[in-house]
Amino acid sequence: MSSSVPSNGSVLIAPSNFYNVQQLTTRQKEAFVRAFQEADTNDAGLVAVSAIPNLVQQVLGSVSNHEMQEVQSRVDIRAHKGEVTFPDFMEIMTETMSSTTQWGQLKTPLSGTVGFDSLQTQITQKALKRGFEFNLMVVGESGMGKSTLVNTLFKAKVSRPSCMQVTTPIPSTVDINAVSHVIEEKGVRLKLTITDTPGFGDQINNKDCWTPIVDYVNEQFELYLAEEVSINRKRFIPDSRIHCCLYFIQPSGHALKPLDIEFMRHLHDCVNIVPVIAKADTLTVEERDSFKHRIREDIKTHNIRIYPQGYDPEDEAEKALADAIDALIPFGVVGSDRAIKVGNKDVYGRQTRWGVIEVENRDHCEFSQLRDMLIKTHMQDLKEKTDKVHYENFRRQRLQQHHEQASKYTGESNI
Amino acid sequence: MSSSVPSNGSVLIAPSNFYNVQQLTTRQKEAFVRAFQEADTNDAGLVAVSAIPNLVQQVLGSVSNHEMQEVQSRVDIRAHKGEVTFPDFMEIMTETMSSTTQWGQLKTPLSGTVGFDSLQTQITQKALKRGFEFNLMVVGESGMGKSTLVNTLFKAKVSRPSCMQVTTPIPSTVDINAVSHVIEEKGVRLKLTITDTPGFGDQINNKDCWTPIVDYVNEQFELYLAEEVSINRKRFIPDSRIHCCLYFIQPSGHALKPLDIEFMRHLHDCVNIVPVIAKADTLTVEERDSFKHRIREDIKTHNIRIYPQGYDPEDEAEKALADAIDALIPFGVVGSDRAIKVGNKDVYGRQTRWGVIEVENRDHCEFSQLRDMLIKTHMQDLKEKTDKVHYENFRRQRLQQHHEQASKYTGESNI
Repeated sequence: MSSSVPSNGSVLIAPSNFYNVQQLTTRQKEAFVRAFQEADTNDAGLVAVSAIPNLVQQVLGSVSNHEMQEVQSRVDIRAHKGEVTFPDFMEIMTETMSSTTQWGQLKTPLSGTVGFDSLQTQITQKALKRGFEFNLMVVGESGMGKSTLVNTLFKAKVSRPSCMQVTTPIPSTVDINAVSHVIEEKGVRLKLTITDTPGFGDQINNKDCWTPIVDYVNEQFELYLAEEVSINRKRFIPDSRIHCCLYFIQPSGHALKPLDIEFMRHLHDCVNIVPVIAKADTLTVEERDSFKHRIREDIKTHNIRIYPQGYDPEDEAEKALADAIDALIPFGVVGSDRAIKVGNKDVYGRQTRWGVIEVENRDHCEFSQLRDMLIKTHMQDLKEKTDKVHYENFRRQRLQQHHEQASKYTGESNI
Repeated sequence: MSSSVPSNGSVLIAPSNFYNVQQLTTRQKEAFVRAFQEADTNDAGLVAVSAIPNLVQQVLGSVSNHEMQEVQSRVDIRAHKGEVTFPDFMEIMTETMSSTTQWGQLKTPLSGTVGFDSLQTQITQKALKRGFEFNLMVVGESGMGKSTLVNTLFKAKVSRPSCMQVTTPIPSTVDINAVSHVIEEKGVRLKLTITDTPGFGDQINNKDCWTPIVDYVNEQFELYLAEEVSINRKRFIPDSRIHCCLYFIQPSGHALKPLDIEFMRHLHDCVNIVPVIAKADTLTVEERDSFKHRIREDIKTHNIRIYPQGYDPEDEAEKALADAIDALIPFGVVGSDRAIKVGNKDVYGRQTRWGVIEVENRDHCEFSQLRDMLIKTHMQDLKEKTDKVHYENFRRQRLQQHHEQASKYTGESNI
């Protein structure tokens, strides 16, 4: 099925890494036979394609949407006039079983404590020893408080606002600056790389100003791919891929600007985009709500895919979380790395003549919700989506390209 | 440095995924400059190669042996007459810094709670959802209680002893049978595949009887590699690679047999071998001790590398654990999947005329220690060693081979 290590005499034939029907235990085999017999009501030795999803659910218990799609494609290969034979049915069930650990009634009962629940501790210990990495990119016109927000997010001076140096002119093209820091909390070390893009949107003509950013994101994929396919690759591939892009929208109160739309449309296929409304304190409650509503409409109209996307809708907990985030997007945020006394405690905030805007107060802005998502609940998911969705898309296209060129040269067409 | 996606017009040039000196913050740069100045006592703008490991330790704190070797190789490329220049020194430090999360004094201080310690929970939740996999192989002559031991280890009927069916003759060649089970404990699902090798060592002439086993282990690597390099690869590659091989030694009380030695020598480069003395209850305390001593000597003499190997000696905790295991190898074990009443509690054991051998009693045999290692402390490490050491070796050789053949055909020598 899957083609393999480049061919030349030593072609790999990889039938499948699934185990086959011969490897089933008596109990497993009997469960499948029973399911087949129940569905094959007229003893024709055939089962309707439409009955198979139910039979799978019945034997293996809850199967995710994604897995069910795979079942469907296994069925499609083997079906004939809307039915499958007994041997085909057994193969479908065995492959499905071997691709999941959700085995429902086929699980083998234990007669005592074994102790493999310690696997949880075993994996965290290994991860802790290695430390974590997270690569965040911030994009937006100058003066939107990008650096301040990032510093507030991580409670550390991880990004230096460019306006600090009054002498620094706005670059005449888009620059890309990456700076790394290691921060540690309760024994967890995190290498955080903040990539800034000064000059974005700051020109008179901002045509194509997303190109250097798209290129940069793809270059990181290219570096990762080059290491992944190299013969003597590193034990852990250094990961410079951008895991999340915070995109700053001006608090205009109107709608997305054409530049916002173009940027997101050009980037949404290669990076997880999280849009935020910068300096949300300049908007009244009503303005903010209607602006957010309008932005969500614009995003929908222009088919922009922002993070989170592609979560498993079968997973109740994940869906609830994703829905909660969806409702908040774009986060209206206020940043401040300065502590202000409110009552007798210090809070991060902005002192105005009419009061203090507390950054971490959920009634004042959505900074806390943004931080909870980015750091406390979805950081690992952002990394996994980058690796399993965006990077895989890049890799597939890149190898496909190479494959086509190669077969053009050799005149072969090895599929 | 690392060569890349096969070349053809669209060659990848991958200088490195490390960030460079320009990306350092002022604080990071100053720390390196200070370290250089302190070592460059006579202001020659040069630092002795021998001083570099100390400087690295000084700035970045504890650096593992493995990382120090990488530092050394970075130094070797750049050194001239035993010294390196300031720009080279900066590059060495920057690369070293970007390859680790151990940043010692260069860590960025936090001014409050951020919450990224939740990464631990985030990774375990993802792992729990997916479930775990573990592939265990058992090898040894028939009648050594292999199946019973495996069933006792996992407190479940995961392996059916072949002698149960009296009619089953010993196969005339080595067979390979894999059976999968899913077991669950405290919400942790584990797909356990037990690969048995009936017929091993049971012939009159056992010459080359390890060959089918070596082939099988390599075939699983081949399948994994084929999926890994395929264009449309699966999100999670099905893993049929053998993570651990339990090798059963007859309780002869003498020494390793030539077959034992040959088997281990042929397998130790592709799989984690854990030798056990089967049916250790047939040996007296003195016999067992001297037998174990003798086996350890034999293993040393014949340069057999058994698990654990290649752990990080810098890591005190890991070293202590590995030493404790080393001292116990080969584990003298007794299996029993039958419960026996001792006093008023049920224990797994073997009832003899002179008493009960309790399988899980640490004074009676080393079954508990074997289980602790295999399941409670080292299961993840066995998987990681398989992936990062044995599989990588296989992959390197396989691609090297392919590369040589390819350049033979094209007449090119692209290194």
